[in-house]
Amino acid sequence: MVRPLAIAMGDPAGIGPEIIAKSWTARELHSLAPFFAIGDTRAISAVADTPVRRIDSPEQAASVFDEAIPVLPVDSSSEIRPGNPDRDGARCALQSLELAVGLTRSHAAGALVTGPVAKHRLYDIGFTHPGQTEFVAERCGVSRDNAVMMLAGPTLRVVPVTTHMPLADVASTLSVELIVAKGRATARGLQRNFGIDKPRLAFAGFNPHAGENGAIGTEEIDYLIPAIEILRAEGIDATGPFAADTMFHARARSTFDAVLCLYHDQALIPIKTLHFDEGVNITLGLPIVRTSPDHGTAFGIAGTDEAEPGAMIAAIRLAASAAQLREEYAAGCRDK
Amino acid sequence: MVRPLAIAMGDPAGIGPEIIAKSWTARELHSLAPFFAIGDTRAISAVADTPVRRIDSPEQAASVFDEAIPVLPVDSSSEIRPGNPDRDGARCALQSLELAVGLTRSHAAGALVTGPVAKHRLYDIGFTHPGQTEFVAERCGVSRDNAVMMLAGPTLRVVPVTTHMPLADVASTLSVELIVAKGRATARGLQRNFGIDKPRLAFAGFNPHAGENGAIGTEEIDYLIPAIEILRAEGIDATGPFAADTMFHARARSTFDAVLCLYHDQALIPIKTLHFDEGVNITLGLPIVRTSPDHGTAFGIAGTDEAEPGAMIAAIRLAASAAQLREEYAAGCRDK
Repeated sequence: MVRPLAIAMGDPAGIGPEIIAKSWTARELHSLAPFFAIGDTRAISAVADTPVRRIDSPEQAASVFDEAIPVLPVDSSSEIRPGNPDRDGARCALQSLELAVGLTRSHAAGALVTGPVAKHRLYDIGFTHPGQTEFVAERCGVSRDNAVMMLAGPTLRVVPVTTHMPLADVASTLSVELIVAKGRATARGLQRNFGIDKPRLAFAGFNPHAGENGAIGTEEIDYLIPAIEILRAEGIDATGPFAADTMFHARARSTFDAVLCLYHDQALIPIKTLHFDEGVNITLGLPIVRTSPDHGTAFGIAGTDEAEPGAMIAAIRLAASAAQLREEYAAGCRDK
Repeated sequence: MVRPLAIAMGDPAGIGPEIIAKSWTARELHSLAPFFAIGDTRAISAVADTPVRRIDSPEQAASVFDEAIPVLPVDSSSEIRPGNPDRDGARCALQSLELAVGLTRSHAAGALVTGPVAKHRLYDIGFTHPGQTEFVAERCGVSRDNAVMMLAGPTLRVVPVTTHMPLADVASTLSVELIVAKGRATARGLQRNFGIDKPRLAFAGFNPHAGENGAIGTEEIDYLIPAIEILRAEGIDATGPFAADTMFHARARSTFDAVLCLYHDQALIPIKTLHFDEGVNITLGLPIVRTSPDHGTAFGIAGTDEAEPGAMIAAIRLAASAAQLREEYAAGCRDK
C-alpha cells in the first residue's frame, strides 16, 4: 500500500482547489489512492461544498480520506478570492509546494502531485526557478539536464528535449550529448514510473520530412542519428529520426512507448491535440515521483465550477501507480 | 452539374491507380461526382478487377462512369510493375499531370485531382518545380507566393506559411508581407472553395506560448501581430497569435475555419494526427480547383490491395463541391 499522496494545491485563486475537490468526489469512480492536499482550506471551501478536514501530519490522511479531503494547512495571509490572484496567494502556493516536496522526499508522502501555479506571480515574489519542475529537481539534488519533463496521455507520451526557448535558438542548443541524456532518462523513467521493461523510444526529426537525408536541413545527420546510435549501443530501443508529422496518428503511436521531440510545440501540439483534458506532466529522473495536471491556473474560470478535473485525476492515478512501482523495486520484487 | 473531374493518376507504380479504382467502386456510397482518370489503363488493371474503359475526350466520361472507370490514356513506354517505379512511369505521371491541368484550364474538366507522385523521380527526368503544386500554379500563371497549400480534414484546415525548408531557416524567411499574402489568399480561398462567406482565420504563434509577449522570442511582435492588424484592417476576421499547442483540440477547432501555421510541422503534425487517412491538399489562389490526397506514392504497399482510398475520396468530394461553388459564383448565383 502506497503512502498517501501529497497534492500541493497550487495558486489558491486558480482552479487547483476546485479540481482537487472534484477529484476527491470522484475518488471511488476512479479508484483513487488516498491523498491529502497542502494549502489553504478556505480555497477549497470557497469553490466547493466538499467536506474538508484539517490534519496535522500525513499519517492522519488515510483515515480521514473516506469522509473528507484531508488538508495539511498552509494559510494565505489574505482573503481567498477565486479568479483574483494576489501576492499572498503566490506565497501560499510556494510554501505549499516546498512542504509537499519535503514530505515526499522524507517518505512521509508516497508521491508529489503539484497543482497549477502562475509562474510570473511566483517570479514577483522572488522565485528564481523557471518553473515548479526545476524547483523540485533542485530540492531533490538533481541537475536540470537530468530532470526530464514528460507529458503523458492515454495513448501518447512525449518528451520535449528543449522547452521554453525561442524556436530560432533551438538548433544551436541541440547536441548529441543533450539528446543522449534525455534519451537515457526517458528510457529509465519509463521503466521506473510506468513499469515498461524494454521501452521503445522514437525520435522525431527536427526538419520537415526529417530532413530528407540532408536535403532539408542537417540536424538529423549532425545530432539525431549519432545520438540514436549511442543509445542503441547501450541497449536502448531507440529508433528514428522519423518525419514528425507522421508519428502521431493512432497506428504510428502503437509502435513506441514515447516520442522524444526536439522543441516545445513539436511535443505539445500532438499531446494537447489528442489529450487536452487528460494530459499529465511527469518529471523523470527524480528520486521521488512527481506529477502534475498539464494545464494552467485558468484564473478566468476559477470559482465558476467549470474546471474539468480529468487531468488532475489522471495525475493522481499516475503518481499512485508510479509510487507503487517504486516500492516494488525498493522491496526487490522487481529488478531494475 | 459540374463537368467531370480530371484525376491525374500519379506514378503508375504507386498506390494512385489502386485508390482511384477503390474510389470508383465506392462512388455511390460516397455520392461521388463523375470523374475520369488520366494515365496508363494497365496501372489500374494491374491492381484491381475494376472495369476500365478508354475514352477519347472528357465529354465521354459521364456516360461511361456508371459502368467503368473512364480513362483518358497516357501510356507508359515500359511495363507497369506496382511497387517498382521507373523513369518511364515518372514520364507518364508528368504527361498525365500536364494533360489534366490543360483540360481543367480549358474547362473540359470541372476540377483537377492529382494522384501521388515521387518528387525525386520527377527530378530525375528533368522536372524543375519543387512539387506538383508549383507546377500547377505556373501552368495557371499564378506566382508561387500566391498559390497557397491548405490541408483540409473533417474537423481542421491548416495552411503552412512556409513549407519544405530547414526549420532553422524559417525565422529569417518570415515577413509581414508573406504572412499577409497567405492570410488574404486563405480568406479568399475559404470563400471560393468552401463557401464560407466570412472566414475566421487563426494564426499560430511561432515560439512556445506564442512568445509570451516577447519573453520567448519576438517573431510574434515583429511579424505576426502587424500582419494580423493589416488583415483586420482589410475586413478579414484574423485573430492571434495563439499558443500553437492549445489551438488544435476539439473545442478550440470549433472557433475558427483555418489555422495559419508558420512552418511545415506546425501545420502537418495536427492535421495528420487527427486526420491521417482523410486529409486533402487543396491549392488556394488558382483559377482552377485543384485537390490531392495528402499522402505519398507508398511504393512499399503498392499492388498489395492495402491502400486506403479515404483521402482520395475526400479529395474528389472536395474538388466537386469547390467546382460547384465556382460555377455558382460564375453564374452570379453567389456574389463574391
